[in-house]
Amino acid sequence: MHRPDSPLLTDLYEFAMLDAYWAEGMTDLAVFEFFVRKLPPRRGFLMAAGLDQVVAFLEALHFEADDINLLRRTGHFSDPFLAALQRLRFTGDVDAMPEGTVFFAEEPILRVTAPLPEAQFVESRLINLVQLETLIASKAARMVLAAPGKRLVDFGLRRAHGAEAGLLAARASYLAGFAGTATTLAGALFGIPVYGTMAHSFIQAHDDETLAFEHFARVRPDGLILLLDTYDTERAARHVVELAPRLAAAGITIAGVRLDSGDLAQHARHVRQILDQGGLNGTTIFASGGLDEDALLRLSRERAPIDGFGIGTSLAASVDAPALDCAYKLQEYGGVPRRKRSEGKATWPGRKQVWRCHAEGGTIAGDTITLANMPCAGTPLLRPVMRAGRRVTPPISASEIRSYSARQLESLPESLAALEAAPYPVTIHPALRELAAVCDARTEAKPASALSRAGSDAP
Amino acid sequence: MHRPDSPLLTDLYEFAMLDAYWAEGMTDLAVFEFFVRKLPPRRGFLMAAGLDQVVAFLEALHFEADDINLLRRTGHFSDPFLAALQRLRFTGDVDAMPEGTVFFAEEPILRVTAPLPEAQFVESRLINLVQLETLIASKAARMVLAAPGKRLVDFGLRRAHGAEAGLLAARASYLAGFAGTATTLAGALFGIPVYGTMAHSFIQAHDDETLAFEHFARVRPDGLILLLDTYDTERAARHVVELAPRLAAAGITIAGVRLDSGDLAQHARHVRQILDQGGLNGTTIFASGGLDEDALLRLSRERAPIDGFGIGTSLAASVDAPALDCAYKLQEYGGVPRRKRSEGKATWPGRKQVWRCHAEGGTIAGDTITLANMPCAGTPLLRPVMRAGRRVTPPISASEIRSYSARQLESLPESLAALEAAPYPVTIHPALRELAAVCDARTEAKPASALSRAGSDAP
Repeated sequence: MHRPDSPLLTDLYEFAMLDAYWAEGMTDLAVFEFFVRKLPPRRGFLMAAGLDQVVAFLEALHFEADDINLLRRTGHFSDPFLAALQRLRFTGDVDAMPEGTVFFAEEPILRVTAPLPEAQFVESRLINLVQLETLIASKAARMVLAAPGKRLVDFGLRRAHGAEAGLLAARASYLAGFAGTATTLAGALFGIPVYGTMAHSFIQAHDDETLAFEHFARVRPDGLILLLDTYDTERAARHVVELAPRLAAAGITIAGVRLDSGDLAQHARHVRQILDQGGLNGTTIFASGGLDEDALLRLSRERAPIDGFGIGTSLAASVDAPALDCAYKLQEYGGVPRRKRSEGKATWPGRKQVWRCHAEGGTIAGDTITLANMPCAGTPLLRPVMRAGRRVTPPISASEIRSYSARQLESLPESLAALEAAPYPVTIHPALRELAAVCDARTEAKPASALSRAGSDAP
Repeated sequence: MHRPDSPLLTDLYEFAMLDAYWAEGMTDLAVFEFFVRKLPPRRGFLMAAGLDQVVAFLEALHFEADDINLLRRTGHFSDPFLAALQRLRFTGDVDAMPEGTVFFAEEPILRVTAPLPEAQFVESRLINLVQLETLIASKAARMVLAAPGKRLVDFGLRRAHGAEAGLLAARASYLAGFAGTATTLAGALFGIPVYGTMAHSFIQAHDDETLAFEHFARVRPDGLILLLDTYDTERAARHVVELAPRLAAAGITIAGVRLDSGDLAQHARHVRQILDQGGLNGTTIFASGGLDEDALLRLSRERAPIDGFGIGTSLAASVDAPALDCAYKLQEYGGVPRRKRSEGKATWPGRKQVWRCHAEGGTIAGDTITLANMPCAGTPLLRPVMRAGRRVTPPISASEIRSYSARQLESLPESLAALEAAPYPVTIHPALRELAAVCDARTEAKPASALSRAGSDAP
């Protein structure tokens, strides 16, 4: 295999452009910004995540001899270019919204300022990381809002898109307020709590369900959660009640049971009754099986007696919106603001800042996107993260980000916290519109206003 | 970071169950099968992929001292268990449909026969790999069918869910008939062709578009493709025509141009006309920008003069169906067939085979799912891949699989090759229904027929 942070994990055209930039001596400072053009359907906000992985990627960026040899073998590149690649490092600046920050369409959440070849080269992997974690954190935040006070656990590894998706989904969902993950390696890598129950196969491999429960309980007594739905949920609940005294005699408590199929609210009510009548009032009910934020809201409104949820597919693959309409675009080169005007995908030029205003009580009330050097009312959201290729602020632990994101979610007005969200006011400062017109005049273009009228989703 | 094939990339409960199996001496042979319960909406078939990665994972499975130390630090596991883990290897058998095989709901595509702890432990990562590649190969196959004769290239890395998703999407789409990928590392790892053009930022960084084209052409003359839509697509096409004689004088041919926004069919017609009138009849037109199989079919029906397509998001995140309703389930343990009967998720017991019948002319005509030891009409699809933990058939190169999958797609009846597919006949052999009833009687269950009537998506 390859080393996990291989710089060859990028589009071939990044190398081709590097070759051309170096050949022409185009190494002046460039400013690129990452933003989302349009929110997915139903979504009122997104939650920024992935910055920590981006910083690690930028700090570690370099080519080893093996990487160069692989590239040489493609036959696409000259020896002088390959030699220059071996000297490539990221020496630029990064400004970004802290992970866990709520943001909206068109707002830059991460800005790279670096010599053009460096800022260009990191494009593909930077988007790859920020999109994934932002996607998952944003989805997880909806679930957290839909199930207040419930313990949510990421069960998504098997349906995540590969290894890294599984690991980063565990991280991103924890940042957004999940209690933890079932993915063992994610716990070890990111210092987040890991949870586990048992699978149907464990029950099936035994000839008797009660025997399977008892056996598992005696070997794995800590935080014991028994799975009820392999054959018949309510019958299994009665098996649990029968078993409890034998286990209690051995000092073993049944912490919880898990439901994984059928009408979860109805099963939960029946099971709660069976457990309570059997004296197991302290045994919690945990549910899983195809749940998303709409199901969580429904169960919460029905007051189903469920204490926690395992969430798999809908979280780990962000099923309703498995991709963001996002971009990392050149906004300035050599001190000159730039923009593309591609139909439906035009960008605002120049290096920018996002300012947020709050109403009394702390609810967020409106954002303004300005040029970076302009003062504005509110709090600036993009903050220095790297300077000259090094991190200038200490890394923030996953649990600190989780506390910050909880405060971010508390600051949402009801209209945004709802699953069917209303729009939030984001103002494009007039100075940006003026600058766009100047850029267009310089590149012999149609005026910016004509493009706005074309109904594109960006300016 | 972690080593890429870390065995800790699994759900915590796999370790807990291993602990319990070993404690109880439950190490008899188990049979698990991977299958898809239900096809995604609109889909008539899926294409199996990911087997090569599964075999590599199973062959390499072992715990290193670092892995054990990480697990020890969780505090969840005893020293004797951790010592036993260090001896864990996969010693079992694998039978599977070859990669590139077309398959249907309920059909096992991969069967693991191994001592229970081994067969159980590999569950999470095996599903994680097979789901992802099958998802992407199946999506790519639809695009190949929708754009016959066109060159399709994977542009999806930036919108794929992390590093591995990007790499395996490149592989899976190539297996299904794509011409190649833009992801450099995927080319090197899997021996598949890599393609590249240029980004808007390259044009934007120059003060003049024609100058940007010329500069790129002189430095990267091979397979030169120029991007037209940064400011105005048709104007850029005229710049290309003006530039062509100067480049020709230097022996440089403009291989193609790329359109990336707006009405692609209309732009392609205008650009084709401009190029042809400028004598550039050999310059091909390549299009990208939010394309999926429906857009490809529409462009193909409109006879848009486009020679090839770059496909990103819709492929790499399989946007219309970003997850499969798939499972890896225990079907037999200690010689006894097993099944779960969870509502809506019941399984057929026993180790199984899938037989395929063909009509005259080679079109596929119907499948039958039987017990593995029963003869049946047609061709058996599951074939030996591993025995006693070792590969027994040589690895198949990506290009060989690609040829095989092309023949598989040719064998589809029109009703299945359509984007809105009709159902395909898959018969459950009566012997499986009888065995299910026997299993149910053994686990004191409601009869199998009652479950069928309940309208579940599996038996």
